Amino acid sequence: MGWGDLGAFGEPSKETPNLDQMAAEGMLFLDFYTANPLCSPSRAALLTGRLPVRNGFYTTNAHARNAYTPQDIVGGIPDSELLLPELLKKAGYINKIIGKWHLGHRPQFHPLRHGFDEWFGSPNCHFGPYDNRELPNIPVYRDWEMIGRYYEDFKIDLKTGEANLTQLYLQEALDFINKQQTSQQPFFLYWAIDATHAPVYASKQFLGTSQRGLYGDAVREIDDSIGKILRHLQRLGISENTFVFFTSDNGAALISAPKQGGSNGPFLCGKQTTFEGGMREPAIAWWPGHIPAGGVSHQLGNVMDLFTTSLSLAGLQPPSDRQIDGIDLLPVILQGKLIDRPIFYYRGNELMAVRVGLYKAHYWTWSNSWEEYGKGTDFCPGQSVSGVTTHTQEEHTHLPLLFHLGRDPGEKFPLSFASEEYQRALERIAGIVQRHKETLVPGQPQLNVCDKAVMNWSPPGCQKLGKCLKAPESDPKKCSWPH
Amino acid sequence: MGWGDLGAFGEPSKETPNLDQMAAEGMLFLDFYTANPLCSPSRAALLTGRLPVRNGFYTTNAHARNAYTPQDIVGGIPDSELLLPELLKKAGYINKIIGKWHLGHRPQFHPLRHGFDEWFGSPNCHFGPYDNRELPNIPVYRDWEMIGRYYEDFKIDLKTGEANLTQLYLQEALDFINKQQTSQQPFFLYWAIDATHAPVYASKQFLGTSQRGLYGDAVREIDDSIGKILRHLQRLGISENTFVFFTSDNGAALISAPKQGGSNGPFLCGKQTTFEGGMREPAIAWWPGHIPAGGVSHQLGNVMDLFTTSLSLAGLQPPSDRQIDGIDLLPVILQGKLIDRPIFYYRGNELMAVRVGLYKAHYWTWSNSWEEYGKGTDFCPGQSVSGVTTHTQEEHTHLPLLFHLGRDPGEKFPLSFASEEYQRALERIAGIVQRHKETLVPGQPQLNVCDKAVMNWSPPGCQKLGKCLKAPESDPKKCSWPH
Repeated sequence: MGWGDLGAFGEPSKETPNLDQMAAEGMLFLDFYTANPLCSPSRAALLTGRLPVRNGFYTTNAHARNAYTPQDIVGGIPDSELLLPELLKKAGYINKIIGKWHLGHRPQFHPLRHGFDEWFGSPNCHFGPYDNRELPNIPVYRDWEMIGRYYEDFKIDLKTGEANLTQLYLQEALDFINKQQTSQQPFFLYWAIDATHAPVYASKQFLGTSQRGLYGDAVREIDDSIGKILRHLQRLGISENTFVFFTSDNGAALISAPKQGGSNGPFLCGKQTTFEGGMREPAIAWWPGHIPAGGVSHQLGNVMDLFTTSLSLAGLQPPSDRQIDGIDLLPVILQGKLIDRPIFYYRGNELMAVRVGLYKAHYWTWSNSWEEYGKGTDFCPGQSVSGVTTHTQEEHTHLPLLFHLGRDPGEKFPLSFASEEYQRALERIAGIVQRHKETLVPGQPQLNVCDKAVMNWSPPGCQKLGKCLKAPESDPKKCSWPH
Repeated sequence: MGWGDLGAFGEPSKETPNLDQMAAEGMLFLDFYTANPLCSPSRAALLTGRLPVRNGFYTTNAHARNAYTPQDIVGGIPDSELLLPELLKKAGYINKIIGKWHLGHRPQFHPLRHGFDEWFGSPNCHFGPYDNRELPNIPVYRDWEMIGRYYEDFKIDLKTGEANLTQLYLQEALDFINKQQTSQQPFFLYWAIDATHAPVYASKQFLGTSQRGLYGDAVREIDDSIGKILRHLQRLGISENTFVFFTSDNGAALISAPKQGGSNGPFLCGKQTTFEGGMREPAIAWWPGHIPAGGVSHQLGNVMDLFTTSLSLAGLQPPSDRQIDGIDLLPVILQGKLIDRPIFYYRGNELMAVRVGLYKAHYWTWSNSWEEYGKGTDFCPGQSVSGVTTHTQEEHTHLPLLFHLGRDPGEKFPLSFASEEYQRALERIAGIVQRHKETLVPGQPQLNVCDKAVMNWSPPGCQKLGKCLKAPESDPKKCSWPH
């Protein structure tokens, strides 16, 4: 989803009454970011509280490339990383992931090996259908074992867009909440739905109900489900004891627009880019009785903060043996404080941009290559800012492009290099960047090697279902990341 | 102001708490339009309920040109047009205009000759300062006579952006409301503030208070003033007897961005264009006790509807001897009905586009000329949609460009001409366009002739102030409208 996909964030169809209500009852974050313009690294950052360049969810195969965890990826979340659920266990939490994991599908990366107690969902994106020869269909797991595959046992009709997956995820969530409420055990639910990721889908009852086409149908179903989850918490009487946060892992994918792509509101470009459209996210915190209703925060937030904030809520300290990038948002949420902190915009191994206050400095600009662009892959359809949405990797490290995101949220008007404002703002940012780079210890890159042999041929449990497939011989290669 | 300038419409700084509150207490219109992408014609349309091409507020000097009422314009609102205040008088209303009139500054066009009982404001835009030789400074009137001139008696500091005009306009409004409440006479107040029009200004107390720079300061002052007016109505106990509507006369002027230009949210281009950014407007209806709080309407609305709706509120019928384009929105506002009606997007004498339901067909596309564009005048900065934001006037009357504004509010992805959806939608639109064109009786164009002699050299009252200037000899010419 993109920043502009919710009514509360100005989507012109205003079709998200439940999320809008969640915002009205909670706190709306207008300056909230993800840690990466792509899925897997963002999710790894959320669960580790660390930038992908630290936790290993990046590639060094080429400069400034977005990488993720397709089926042939060899890497995944390193054992050395401490995930939020692992830490929450120490405070007696039971942890469940529903939906897309995306931190590696090989056995050592299984979410139940990294702190989760339960899982219903898939390790990779719901792409397909595949032929189970060149590519196996993506498995859907319940806990340790697969219980079927997408397009076989969990249908997605690519013609109509019909799939009941969000309903399954919703029911799983409600059941899990019921169970924990009965057992009185504190819980962490990571509800990682993916209906707005192409191929976009919605249940029959939502198909055709949105002004926005299939994408809007998917948004409406997610919105409806979130309303049901929040009301469920209230009905069970545990809403004042349950902190809920809604956000997204990257900006709307404009390459999928208009049929399968969402809206980044007034921001530039979308998913895959380090412009605001790629990384600024809708975000709402909800905790009745604690968060004052109708709050609006301009705190620069990041999905990594959910790691630190969740630990704080559980009375735990973040690990002290490593750099944690997330900050504790509770003073922001509960006392309306504003914490001065930068936002780093990485693309793979490169720090592309930095936001400090209302200023954003671009050290590198790139949308995608002329070659890709010429073939119709456009991360900024209808948008073109000369010298900014460049199709070659442009280095600006000596004279960064500087934007004032208050006057110019769309990153269309770079400040004059000669202006006093430029000098003043850049001086401050340069110091922050220098300190960041000097102290950065990059993690071992996990997204460099691909191998067809590691695909989901025979996930655990496949025997029981008669769904084991024969893997080809191992042939590890450098993954190719074109953008 | 633009559609995207209010927090309720997704402005990322969310600095309009009073307008957002007005929306929360009233009804938000998400699909509300102005009648023209430029000021004077829109205001003429608002007050007559008729398209500019009917009421004469257009030019035939060149094809599809935006025209307005600069100081040297000879024309103005024709006597044959019936203005809202003229009609409201019949129901005992007292009518006041505060702010910019813009329907002609020569004596015969004076607002008090066209139904208003009181006026505080100016006939033209607050451009300047002028030298009073080549161009006189714009007068500010109280009722029949000028009481000073901009930059002389009513200061605007172009360096700091400081001007107290919005505070003067606010005080005028509060005083007028007090007076009417005392006299128990029904009233119509046309509060036509202009602080967000370049040169943008704000009072000292608002300067530097917005994240958005001077433009944001101006928005904040307007927002604050509207809050004060609404609370004043409530304090006087007449809020349940007073219908209030907030909207704008064109999209944000992106040529003035980022320092003096606002936001059109996710829409394409801005003021001067017939893309959504030029004509879709923020709009809020407020009438406590009558309009259900928190309402959201997708009614296709237009500033011309305020004419018809106001008459309806006053128990009056619209004139039956002429074509009225405005519709009565009361069934929409009070009963949640949706009325099927098209939106016509004119540029001067040309029907550029038509919206019917969620479909918008462009019959002509033009941003501005290559010549102007080459000199830096850009109505679509950072935006470029191939074949859509054209710099030559492109005719599509035989095969209109069609957009689905639900899936594609940014007008970036024209529907395939070959698709069934295109055929189906266009068939319906074509019928509506044909009927519109067949029955259209264009008014005498008022914005064709310019003459330096008619400028505000010696407005009534100038003698008392010693502010009469000598007019040059009459030299009427065709006005030049470059875009």
